[in-house]
Amino acid sequence: MAEKLVRIAELEIDPTRIDAYRALLCEEMEASLYKEPGVLQLQAVAERDHPERLHIFEVYASREAYEAHLTTPHFLKYKHATADMVKALRLIDVDPVMLRTK
Amino acid sequence: MAEKLVRIAELEIDPTRIDAYRALLCEEMEASLYKEPGVLQLQAVAERDHPERLHIFEVYASREAYEAHLTTPHFLKYKHATADMVKALRLIDVDPVMLRTK
Repeated sequence: MAEKLVRIAELEIDPTRIDAYRALLCEEMEASLYKEPGVLQLQAVAERDHPERLHIFEVYASREAYEAHLTTPHFLKYKHATADMVKALRLIDVDPVMLRTK
Repeated sequence: MAEKLVRIAELEIDPTRIDAYRALLCEEMEASLYKEPGVLQLQAVAERDHPERLHIFEVYASREAYEAHLTTPHFLKYKHATADMVKALRLIDVDPVMLRTK
């Protein structure tokens, strides 16, 4: 079985565009989970004290699934549409210690 | 239905104690998921470039479930046993934007 690929994205969004950004993000996440069998988890949260700071916890079935995701029309649409809303983006490559959901 | 409680914990572990810390963390996570119906997700990852930096993504069924978790013997054992292994701990209260797992 291929090794899962896990990543954390930390974003800071232009606070004047946060609603528009969240709508585009949710649309992209819905499409990814529905259309891509290799997208296993997309979990986005906003800091309570700084709602313009988002954290996205992402799990893909394999590196290939992740790389395929980057070429999908829904991802490219999101990336293009949100480019000027994202003030900062930090991608953290991580290795699973334990992944458990009910 | 009660609102879910989501939290991110960012930890920096004494690099000389990382194996012992991970073993205690995994034991605590297993017990929490098995024994507590209100613990919905515990997902721990380590930064690839800094394996002593851990991120834990935590989802509880409600605030009450989270508060009950803090009083369980397995959590208290973990907290006590790891106290001198944890060099830094940052707890981030977050609100869900979208939580999806397959």
